Amino acid sequence: MLRTHTCGELNINSLGQTVTLCGWVQKSRDLGGTTFIDIRDRFGLTQLILNADTDAELREKARSLGREFVIKVTGKVLERTSKNPKIPTGDIEIAVEELDILNAAKIPPFLIEDETDGGEELRAKYRYLDLRRNPIRQNLMLRHRMGQEVRKYLDAQGFIEVETPVLIKSTPEGARDFVVPSRMNPGEFYALPQSPQTFKQLLMVSGFDRYFQIVKCFRDEDLRADRQPEFTQIDCELSFVEQEDILNIFEGLTRHLFSVVKGITLDTFPRMQYSDAMRLYGSDKPDVRFGMQFVELNDVVKGKNFAIFDNAELVVGINAKGCAGYTRKQVDELTDWLKRPQIGASGLVYCRYNTDGTLKSSVDKFYNEDELTNWAAAFEAEAGDLMLVLAGPADKVRKQLNELRLEMGGRLGLRDKDKFAPLWVVDFPLLEWDEENGRYHAMHHPFTSPKPEDIALLDTEPGSVRANAYDLVINGTEIGGGSIRIHEKTLQSLMFKHLGFSAEEAQKQFGFLLDAFEFGAPPHGGIAFGFDRLCSIFAGLDSIRDVIAFPKNNSGRDVMIDSPSTIAPEQMKELNIATTN
Amino acid sequence: MLRTHTCGELNINSLGQTVTLCGWVQKSRDLGGTTFIDIRDRFGLTQLILNADTDAELREKARSLGREFVIKVTGKVLERTSKNPKIPTGDIEIAVEELDILNAAKIPPFLIEDETDGGEELRAKYRYLDLRRNPIRQNLMLRHRMGQEVRKYLDAQGFIEVETPVLIKSTPEGARDFVVPSRMNPGEFYALPQSPQTFKQLLMVSGFDRYFQIVKCFRDEDLRADRQPEFTQIDCELSFVEQEDILNIFEGLTRHLFSVVKGITLDTFPRMQYSDAMRLYGSDKPDVRFGMQFVELNDVVKGKNFAIFDNAELVVGINAKGCAGYTRKQVDELTDWLKRPQIGASGLVYCRYNTDGTLKSSVDKFYNEDELTNWAAAFEAEAGDLMLVLAGPADKVRKQLNELRLEMGGRLGLRDKDKFAPLWVVDFPLLEWDEENGRYHAMHHPFTSPKPEDIALLDTEPGSVRANAYDLVINGTEIGGGSIRIHEKTLQSLMFKHLGFSAEEAQKQFGFLLDAFEFGAPPHGGIAFGFDRLCSIFAGLDSIRDVIAFPKNNSGRDVMIDSPSTIAPEQMKELNIATTN
Repeated sequence: MLRTHTCGELNINSLGQTVTLCGWVQKSRDLGGTTFIDIRDRFGLTQLILNADTDAELREKARSLGREFVIKVTGKVLERTSKNPKIPTGDIEIAVEELDILNAAKIPPFLIEDETDGGEELRAKYRYLDLRRNPIRQNLMLRHRMGQEVRKYLDAQGFIEVETPVLIKSTPEGARDFVVPSRMNPGEFYALPQSPQTFKQLLMVSGFDRYFQIVKCFRDEDLRADRQPEFTQIDCELSFVEQEDILNIFEGLTRHLFSVVKGITLDTFPRMQYSDAMRLYGSDKPDVRFGMQFVELNDVVKGKNFAIFDNAELVVGINAKGCAGYTRKQVDELTDWLKRPQIGASGLVYCRYNTDGTLKSSVDKFYNEDELTNWAAAFEAEAGDLMLVLAGPADKVRKQLNELRLEMGGRLGLRDKDKFAPLWVVDFPLLEWDEENGRYHAMHHPFTSPKPEDIALLDTEPGSVRANAYDLVINGTEIGGGSIRIHEKTLQSLMFKHLGFSAEEAQKQFGFLLDAFEFGAPPHGGIAFGFDRLCSIFAGLDSIRDVIAFPKNNSGRDVMIDSPSTIAPEQMKELNIATTN
Repeated sequence: MLRTHTCGELNINSLGQTVTLCGWVQKSRDLGGTTFIDIRDRFGLTQLILNADTDAELREKARSLGREFVIKVTGKVLERTSKNPKIPTGDIEIAVEELDILNAAKIPPFLIEDETDGGEELRAKYRYLDLRRNPIRQNLMLRHRMGQEVRKYLDAQGFIEVETPVLIKSTPEGARDFVVPSRMNPGEFYALPQSPQTFKQLLMVSGFDRYFQIVKCFRDEDLRADRQPEFTQIDCELSFVEQEDILNIFEGLTRHLFSVVKGITLDTFPRMQYSDAMRLYGSDKPDVRFGMQFVELNDVVKGKNFAIFDNAELVVGINAKGCAGYTRKQVDELTDWLKRPQIGASGLVYCRYNTDGTLKSSVDKFYNEDELTNWAAAFEAEAGDLMLVLAGPADKVRKQLNELRLEMGGRLGLRDKDKFAPLWVVDFPLLEWDEENGRYHAMHHPFTSPKPEDIALLDTEPGSVRANAYDLVINGTEIGGGSIRIHEKTLQSLMFKHLGFSAEEAQKQFGFLLDAFEFGAPPHGGIAFGFDRLCSIFAGLDSIRDVIAFPKNNSGRDVMIDSPSTIAPEQMKELNIATTN
């Protein structure tokens, strides 16, 4: 090794030792003829000192060092006169006796410190420098730790990690595929997997019993902060289990991770039906770090000649505790915020429960104080609260109120990043109406099983068939989801039919799975966790970008390596393709 | 859970318990009114019994079960009258009280047993059934165990697993890339990584210090038994180390794996210079489970008017111990084998050291017994041995003799699959002459550093520059390889120049790396293990196919899912590409 120690391990017990360290120059300063240099590596920071006792030539060399130079120094460990209790090496310094410059460095384009002055684009271009910063490197070390712990836990539970192929087959279901032209099979393409779904089910047919994989998946979708064209799943499947078993095992995994990685002990995770989540929070991934549940007011507010409420399918509101002091201007701003196209509310009705006990609403013309008292009762509001009410088509207004609830929760400090509120959402609908294509599509995917008691409804009321499907939600973010799968050919064929596949199409795309179900497929189910999202939640980040070493931007570009890029005409010729743009 | 126990865990201590098992019907037989059924899962096999005490309807149902039916049974654990000591559950059987058919099964197209009657193509098409067979499943479980152990070991050594991108940039070096058209960037393509080489080097520039990843890599090459278009690497990189450190750490990893996975304690790995490997074995990956080293005979055999030897650049042979009894016919067959186009030898000279002490060669016309005694001395041959000699251009004849040595080693039983002989081959040449393109190319890759003392030779004798590069070879198979990298821009640019890149090309393709080297790149080096090959060696297999769950055939096809396949015209339109075949 070029070093005897890392920059994070020497302390008062090392006094007198002659050591060799390697690392980057964090900073360098001259104080009255003495040169202090902080040398940094992944493990920490150590102070070097060169003073009147040091060889003059060496001091000259030390003074020539710039930030981020890579150096190797040998010297003796001394006790510092001025100690720094904030760092583990703060009691000591190294009196430099030898100094090698292993590599010089240009001045970096932004500060390599916890708080940097670099903009997003600049940091993306020099990602390798941004990765030098502690906060980013800590995220990736956290991710490593989590991956190790996931594997340990699942291994101990009898899961086998099996790698499934990356070059697979394009299928019409789900998101858009990335494809790969095959040179050896002209005119044909592989697709990159959106998930290893069918392979993991085949592994159950093969009798693997418990499978997992931490695996890259790919979706050619338009991107936003929490989406990347390539992302990582903790992908799992189990045989001979029921939904309850899966929830318990993966609740166990999640609690294990919180315990060993963050030192947080979580209680048993609550479970909520999809229908309740929609009714009480307007979302299938409610943030239950705080209450502020929806209160439906149709029975309370209708019939008072307020046309907007009378004509609305649903009148529903939330109680913003302690917000009665909101000024008219603040409420107007909130109303404007709700009316933005992203949310699209048509207006906001409010009712203040003043601290003096009086009630004052924006619809006093239609509702007298007695009636507003009924509102307050419905909201279980107290003096000092602010009731916020929306009206309109049920689905739409719930979505809008969900946004408002999250906004108010944020304003009231109820969305603390250090608090973790997990939740299982269960009993999802099997099918979802696809307006654009005028047909139902699978809410999870076509392999999800309907609840046996609902199968009869498939023909008559497809939209009300419930699935054996579940999501794990933490702090309002979907972390994982899964289902008990169909394992019988007849039911799977029926499902494809309901999704608008002809028998021929189903056979062409998924024949291997339908065939497999005829050779002894066990009952099975599984779950997939978004590993990037899980890591970002653990790291307290809003975006998944900074738990990914080399992420792509919103145009799917890696600006550091400048990819994608054009390829040589000979490459295209060999692959039997041409560009048409 | 649908079961209380697996099919592998009940034994004499379970007597009297009422248990529920799930699994596949392995076989079923009726003996004098008693029905015996073997039920199988990943964990083992348990015998079920239904006899005169069993409900008649239940017995009827049991008799209707076919092979590979998936069933769930409940019953009491009884001691067997006729025990089977070969399996852990062999002392007990289950008296069936309840029986559910969870899924029926068609008759499988081949036997699901350790020895199957299915041909390769049929088993590939029904891979999910082939994976049910114990030997194949054991391979994948071994692979899982090895992956877990690799991660544990490297984690303990301070390595951080970092995921690098799969959608990267096509580069002209190395093998052919698989490419992925970018919808969002029309006319541009991503490439799938042949290895994460540049990313892991950037992680060193970022200060990660020790990186690893078990990662899929991709090469669009023509396939053979030990090659797949997608394969898995254990990819590692370290900062502030020298070659010796890397060899020690990864020798440690390899010994750890042999110890925990196979219970084999290996000695320190020998090291051999590339030049010695070529001289003594004619290969850069010698199988050192056996000796049979090459003996060079130029000094011994030249000048006796045997033109073939006199005109040859190299006369070289091996001593096949105890093979003096080979008949003329056997030697002729060996000669024909050597003359096949795959090997291309022009002939074989032999010399028998008969058990009576006489010497008899195929070139007695030119060499008398005294001279043959000199041959025998050179070979250190004894009575009973057979000396086999080839002549020709040095490089070519060494390759041919390597094949002959391996063949003779196999015939003599010296290539025992249960014996493991690891070897570090070091000091590889930096460059290799590329006949086809009339230029040098990098023997490892363009980022490998030359030995400092050889840099001066780059201009004058490029072919004799040695690299800080090393391979780990086990039993004649290259398991891993790596190098100390270049970490300075000037040297890296010089290297690109020697590889025929213009400065512009180098900047266009690898500018991000050259730039990164200017911002403080530490000295670093690494290694990559072929994980598939490593697993196949541990499993005692010749091919990597059966340590891969869903491999592709020699045309790069997955015949089970029928991939690659055509894609929809709309998909191509969205991607701005067309097929031209």
